[in-house]
Amino acid sequence: MNCYQTRLEKIWDWMAQEEIALVMFEDFEPRRDATVRWLTGQPGDALLFLSADRKSLLMPWDTILAKAYAKADAIVPYNDFDRSPQKALRGALDRLGVPAGSKVEIPPATPYPVFLNFVGELSDFDVICRENGAADHALSLRMVKDDEEIAVMRKAADITNRIIDLLEKKARAGKLKTEAEAAMLIELESRKRGCDGTSFETLAAGPDRSFGIHAFPSWTSGPFATQGLSILDFGLRFRGYCTDVTLTFARDPSPQQQEMLRLVEAAAGIAGESVGAGNDTLRTAKLVDDFFAKSKRKMVHGLGHGVGLDVHEAPFLRSRGKAASPLLPGMVISIEPGLYDPMHGGCRLENDFLITENGCEVLTDSRIIRL
Amino acid sequence: MNCYQTRLEKIWDWMAQEEIALVMFEDFEPRRDATVRWLTGQPGDALLFLSADRKSLLMPWDTILAKAYAKADAIVPYNDFDRSPQKALRGALDRLGVPAGSKVEIPPATPYPVFLNFVGELSDFDVICRENGAADHALSLRMVKDDEEIAVMRKAADITNRIIDLLEKKARAGKLKTEAEAAMLIELESRKRGCDGTSFETLAAGPDRSFGIHAFPSWTSGPFATQGLSILDFGLRFRGYCTDVTLTFARDPSPQQQEMLRLVEAAAGIAGESVGAGNDTLRTAKLVDDFFAKSKRKMVHGLGHGVGLDVHEAPFLRSRGKAASPLLPGMVISIEPGLYDPMHGGCRLENDFLITENGCEVLTDSRIIRL
Repeated sequence: MNCYQTRLEKIWDWMAQEEIALVMFEDFEPRRDATVRWLTGQPGDALLFLSADRKSLLMPWDTILAKAYAKADAIVPYNDFDRSPQKALRGALDRLGVPAGSKVEIPPATPYPVFLNFVGELSDFDVICRENGAADHALSLRMVKDDEEIAVMRKAADITNRIIDLLEKKARAGKLKTEAEAAMLIELESRKRGCDGTSFETLAAGPDRSFGIHAFPSWTSGPFATQGLSILDFGLRFRGYCTDVTLTFARDPSPQQQEMLRLVEAAAGIAGESVGAGNDTLRTAKLVDDFFAKSKRKMVHGLGHGVGLDVHEAPFLRSRGKAASPLLPGMVISIEPGLYDPMHGGCRLENDFLITENGCEVLTDSRIIRL
Repeated sequence: MNCYQTRLEKIWDWMAQEEIALVMFEDFEPRRDATVRWLTGQPGDALLFLSADRKSLLMPWDTILAKAYAKADAIVPYNDFDRSPQKALRGALDRLGVPAGSKVEIPPATPYPVFLNFVGELSDFDVICRENGAADHALSLRMVKDDEEIAVMRKAADITNRIIDLLEKKARAGKLKTEAEAAMLIELESRKRGCDGTSFETLAAGPDRSFGIHAFPSWTSGPFATQGLSILDFGLRFRGYCTDVTLTFARDPSPQQQEMLRLVEAAAGIAGESVGAGNDTLRTAKLVDDFFAKSKRKMVHGLGHGVGLDVHEAPFLRSRGKAASPLLPGMVISIEPGLYDPMHGGCRLENDFLITENGCEVLTDSRIIRL
């Protein structure tokens, strides 16, 4: 049984429990759901329908591409349904022989006005759209990576680490002088090493721009790794799976900047120890908040997040607004403490951790690079 | 009156007509709405609230960045509301003094389960979520560009054209040998020339991969512009505004490939003449369909789309599934006929057109490059 089949069985088991006859997953702009890839290998732009009798039907935008990448019992062009999700759902119900009156679940991201269209056009079915349904169940399953995923993510981390080493080497040799050079090195080296590309637009911010949590524009042809603090936040995508790391380059830091670096490194250490010791997401995030508070600092963003087919996925390590989630073996999470100051610039240190039975393993080797 | 104020007044006028007390716009992952930028200059990650008494309140994720870029009557950190859109809306209603019982419009992209949360938590207001409401009205206003926008888009097109020339020059000199070289040239040159970056991930597909409408991965370190057909689909973003062009590089094309090139060039010509002659979106798309049908070909994607703050925006030029939309002076649209074959590869030719009083003006200078 291949890994897609194993994952599909989990969804079908859940459907049987919930007495759902058909589930629809949607992975189109602007509503992306990497669960379609997790269940079929299809890299994007498709609807996926799963029926209670354990059949899968994929409706891609580009059928040629889907046939090269995806596994599904049937592949039918979305264009055959005028790119209307309601017509596509009707087509899937017909083709999969789902009896009228059955429970049919559509994605929880379905906008309210579109939900009304579904209900109107499929009045002979019981159309369900809810939080904590099929899509959320898939997200919760995806939090804990299986062996195939961990193997791919280790490889993604290895490539990331080689690029980190290269970045440091170039910076020390005086060959990384602009944000563009940093961003381009990552783009080129990642693809040379077999990655699909980057997992998000690289954020390279030289000392003048590192005060922004996410620099805008994400990189320019301006100076990098010059006097002060420079942030380089990037990730790779390898066979669909993401890494997410942040380096800070410090050159001749002022006493204030040195203090920021010290605090961020210490926070990263505290968080790393905490996640390996069976703490939950909330407790780890609060530990870091408490640590910063002692120095009268406040972190304006979350501490970290799950990483997988999405670069930001559950669980989220935040001290505000979210319930605690246990940290379980097989989860891969990023931890990214950072401090930002309009005068002194910013620093952030981010690594990806695999939670294990006995603690955790740091997959990536990101660091503060003192030039 | 600055351009943001002029645009805001149009929304406020519409709100008065519709008797809406407050409108909320949302520009956060995964629900992006560039109307926030159109109305304030804020480049992203923010909620925007407009009240009937003509006040604007921006709630950005990164307040430092917002204060540097955005114009609004008030800027308040989204974090003050625990990043809960319901709490943020409640906060905006309080701060803007909107009387209980008023009509409050939330974005049409609001998922059905989230809509229920809004209705539950704001039961003292009349919460509206609909198609053809404020967000759609803004999109329809954004279709026709104002003078400030046309000036920016001309500049974006100029930079695009200089990069097209450079790509051709490099290819003819034998210095554009990989997909990576093409993609990196665009990244670097665009930022050097003052762009924010690219408007989407560059699609560079050498002859082995050009059969895909959108190559996956978008580019690799593999060969480009070698024997056969190579597609290069890219766009720039300059002060927020996008271009979208596609070049095809043909080297020693086979008779079948020559025929594909000839048909695509002819289709581009037919479409260009049509949009300048007062035809609507549907009629232009059908003209091209009819032309391809005569050669027993079928185009598997739409003919074109509006271009602006979004790289794909209204109006959409499609022959299937969409109602006709008139082509009005001030609209900027892309036209991108293409043909794809699993054996012979693909070709596409895409340029951006400004509709004028008397016809149209081709802003970009994309072409089939025969090597």
